[in-house]
Amino acid sequence: IQSKLPAVPTSIFSIMSTLANEQKAINLSQGFPDFDSDKKLIQLVNKAMLTGKNQYAPMPGIFSLRREISKKMENLYGVSYNPESEITITAGATQAIFTAIAATIKKDDEVLIFKPAYDCYEPTIELFGGKAIAVQLNPEDFNIDWELVRSLISSKTRMIIINTPHNPSGKILSAIDMLQLENILKDTNILLLSDEVYEHIIFDGEIHQTAALFPALAERAFITASFGKTFHNTGWKVGYCLAPKNLMAEFRKVHQFNVFSVNHPTQVALAEYLKTPNNYLELGAFYQQKRDLFLSLIKDSRFEFTPSKGTYFQLLNFKNITDENDFDFAIRLTKENKIAAIPISVFNENKLDTKVLRFCFAKKDETINKAAEILCNI
Amino acid sequence: IQSKLPAVPTSIFSIMSTLANEQKAINLSQGFPDFDSDKKLIQLVNKAMLTGKNQYAPMPGIFSLRREISKKMENLYGVSYNPESEITITAGATQAIFTAIAATIKKDDEVLIFKPAYDCYEPTIELFGGKAIAVQLNPEDFNIDWELVRSLISSKTRMIIINTPHNPSGKILSAIDMLQLENILKDTNILLLSDEVYEHIIFDGEIHQTAALFPALAERAFITASFGKTFHNTGWKVGYCLAPKNLMAEFRKVHQFNVFSVNHPTQVALAEYLKTPNNYLELGAFYQQKRDLFLSLIKDSRFEFTPSKGTYFQLLNFKNITDENDFDFAIRLTKENKIAAIPISVFNENKLDTKVLRFCFAKKDETINKAAEILCNI
Ligand SMILES: CSCCC(=O)C(=O)O
Ligand SMILES: CSCCC(=O)C(=O)O
Repeated sequence: IQSKLPAVPTSIFSIMSTLANEQKAINLSQGFPDFDSDKKLIQLVNKAMLTGKNQYAPMPGIFSLRREISKKMENLYGVSYNPESEITITAGATQAIFTAIAATIKKDDEVLIFKPAYDCYEPTIELFGGKAIAVQLNPEDFNIDWELVRSLISSKTRMIIINTPHNPSGKILSAIDMLQLENILKDTNILLLSDEVYEHIIFDGEIHQTAALFPALAERAFITASFGKTFHNTGWKVGYCLAPKNLMAEFRKVHQFNVFSVNHPTQVALAEYLKTPNNYLELGAFYQQKRDLFLSLIKDSRFEFTPSKGTYFQLLNFKNITDENDFDFAIRLTKENKIAAIPISVFNENKLDTKVLRFCFAKKDETINKAAEILCNI
Repeated sequence: IQSKLPAVPTSIFSIMSTLANEQKAINLSQGFPDFDSDKKLIQLVNKAMLTGKNQYAPMPGIFSLRREISKKMENLYGVSYNPESEITITAGATQAIFTAIAATIKKDDEVLIFKPAYDCYEPTIELFGGKAIAVQLNPEDFNIDWELVRSLISSKTRMIIINTPHNPSGKILSAIDMLQLENILKDTNILLLSDEVYEHIIFDGEIHQTAALFPALAERAFITASFGKTFHNTGWKVGYCLAPKNLMAEFRKVHQFNVFSVNHPTQVALAEYLKTPNNYLELGAFYQQKRDLFLSLIKDSRFEFTPSKGTYFQLLNFKNITDENDFDFAIRLTKENKIAAIPISVFNENKLDTKVLRFCFAKKDETINKAAEILCNI
C-alpha cells in the first residue's frame, strides 16, 4: 500500500511516554497531570450513566453543555456564541482541529503555521492536499514577525493557524499581536484556526486574548478548546469548537461523518460542572504556583530558561550541558537520569540544533520536587 | 465559504430523532436501545475513573482491551489479530470507517458501495476526492449480483465497502458471497472495508461471516466494529478497527492526528467486561426475541415484510397503505401517529420511489407493544 502520509512517524508523545514507562522515569514529556480530576466531576459522570445518559448524544453535543460554554464566553470575554449553531462538542481538541481543517482545506491550499508548532497541524493539512507554510517564531523570545507573515501570504493562502498560549514555548499573544493579525486578514478570505486549548492556564496577571474578542478575526475563526486540559482529565477526550454559523455548518458536515457525536455521560457532567466558574477561573493561579515551584528549584541548575507565560510547559535550554541534539539528550535523560521530556526539534521540522527540551509541570508538588532534584544534578 | 461537501444535509438520524422528541413520538428511527447498559459495566467505568484512569490512553487504545478483542477473534472465529499492531480502539465505528477511508482514498479513486448504504460512506469518500460507485442490491431480497460488481471494477477501483449484517435491510452475507468476493479481489490491489458493527446481532441460527475468516479478504481488510451496539451504550462512542499490520500502520497515522486516543475509563471497563463472553454471545437470542415479538404483533397490519436476519432493524413496506414517498410518510407518521422511523430513500440516493421504512426494534417489549399497536391501526 502506498502511504498518503509517508513522512509521518509515531507521535513523539507516544514515543516518550512509552519509553518513560519502560524506564520507570518521571514522565514530564507528554502533557497531562499526574494528579486526578475533581471527584465531584467523576461523580457527575457516574450519575449521568446511572440515570440513563448512555445513548447517542445529539450530533453537535448536548444543548446544556453548549449553553454553558456560550455563557462562559459571554461572562469571561463578553462575546456571544449561539449554542444552537455556533458551538460543537468534539472528541477532544485534536478532533476539532482535524475537522476544521478537513472542512475547509483543499488541494494546493496554503496554510500558515508558526514554528515550533504542535505536531498535528501539518500532517492534517497535508492529508487534505494542502501545504503548510512555516513561519519561524523568533528563536529567542518566540515573538511573531508580522511583516514576515504578511510577506508569506499569497493568493493560495487559505488559513492561518495560531496557538495561544503557545505549546511548547508558553508564549502568549498580546492584544497588539491580535490587532496586527486583524490588519492582515481583514478584506481577505483567509480563515483562522485559533488553537486556545490552554486558555485558562495563563500567568503573571496576563489576559488571554481569544480570537473571539477581535471582530475581524472572530468572523473567520474556528476556535478550538479542551476540557481535558482545564479539568485535569485529558483521557476523557472532550473538547469543543466555536465558529460563526456559516463555518460551523461546514464543520458539522464533516463532524457528523467523522465521529457523529461525543461520549454522552461526560458531556452531561461537564455541563453541570461548568456552572461553577471557579472550576476554571482558579486554574491560572493553580498552575502558576507549580511553575514558580519548578523554576525556583532549578534556578541554580545548568539549564537556562525564560519563565513560561502560559500552558503547563516550561522550555529548558541545555546548551551549557551537552552538545548532543535534543532527541538524543531526551533519550539519554530518560534512560540514565530517569526523567523524560519532549525534544522540541519535533515541533520544528526536526531541526536538531535546537538545544531545548520541554518539561510538563502539571504534576504533584512531590513530583516536581523529585524532578528538580534530578535536573539540578545534571 | 465554498463548501467541500455541498450536497451533504443534516443526517437523517438527527432529523428524525429531533422530530420524534418534539412530537413526543415513539422513536424507532435512529438505531439505539431505549433500555440501559448493564449496571456492571457502568460500575466498571466508575471504578476506572475512581482509580485514576483519567489521563490519555495510549494512542492505539489500552493494551488490555486490544488483547481481549484479539482473544474474542481467536475464540469466535479462530483468527489471529496481533493486539500490538493490528487492532486500534476508535471513538466509535464511524470514526473507524472515516479513518480507514482517510488513510487510503486519494483523488479520483473509486470505491464500490452497495445501495442502500449507511449514510457515512459516500460523503467521506468524497471528502478525500474519491468517487463512490453505487452497486444496487436486488430491491426484493437485497442479494448482491457479483457479476455486476465485477463489471463495475476498473483500474481506478481502490476499495470495496461491504456491511454485514446490513443496515438497513438486515441482510447477512453468506459464505458463498464472501468466496465470490475473494475471487474478485484476489490478485488485485483493491482494499476492503468491512463494516461489521452488528456482528453479534444475527438470527435464526445463522453465522456471521466476518471478512477475517477469508484469507484473501483479511489480508486487505479494515474491519470496523462497535461496542455501543453490542453493549447497549451507543452514547459512549467506543469501537475499533482490525487490519493487517501494514494497513493498520497507515490507519494509525491518521488516527493519531484525528482523535489521538479514545476515552480512557470506558476502555478499562470494556476490557474487563469482554472477559465474560456471554456478554456478547447472548446478544443474538436477545434481539431475536424482540424481532419475533415485533413481527408477530404486526403480521396482520397492512405493512409487508421479510423478517430481518440481523441488525436491530426491520424494513416494512407500506405500498398497501399510501402513495406518499417514504420521507413524507415518515414525517406524517411521526406527527400524526406518534411513531418515528427512517425513510430508506436516504440510504439510496434519495430515490423516493422506495416504499419502505426502517424500524429499530432495540426497544423494551413494552415499547414494541405500543409501537405495534399504532402500526396495526394504520
Ligand atoms: C495528544 S498527546 C500530547 C499532549 C499534548 O498536548 C502535549 O504534550 O503537547
Ligand atoms: C450515528 S446515528 C445512526 C445510528 C445507526 O447506526 C442507525 O440508525 O443506522
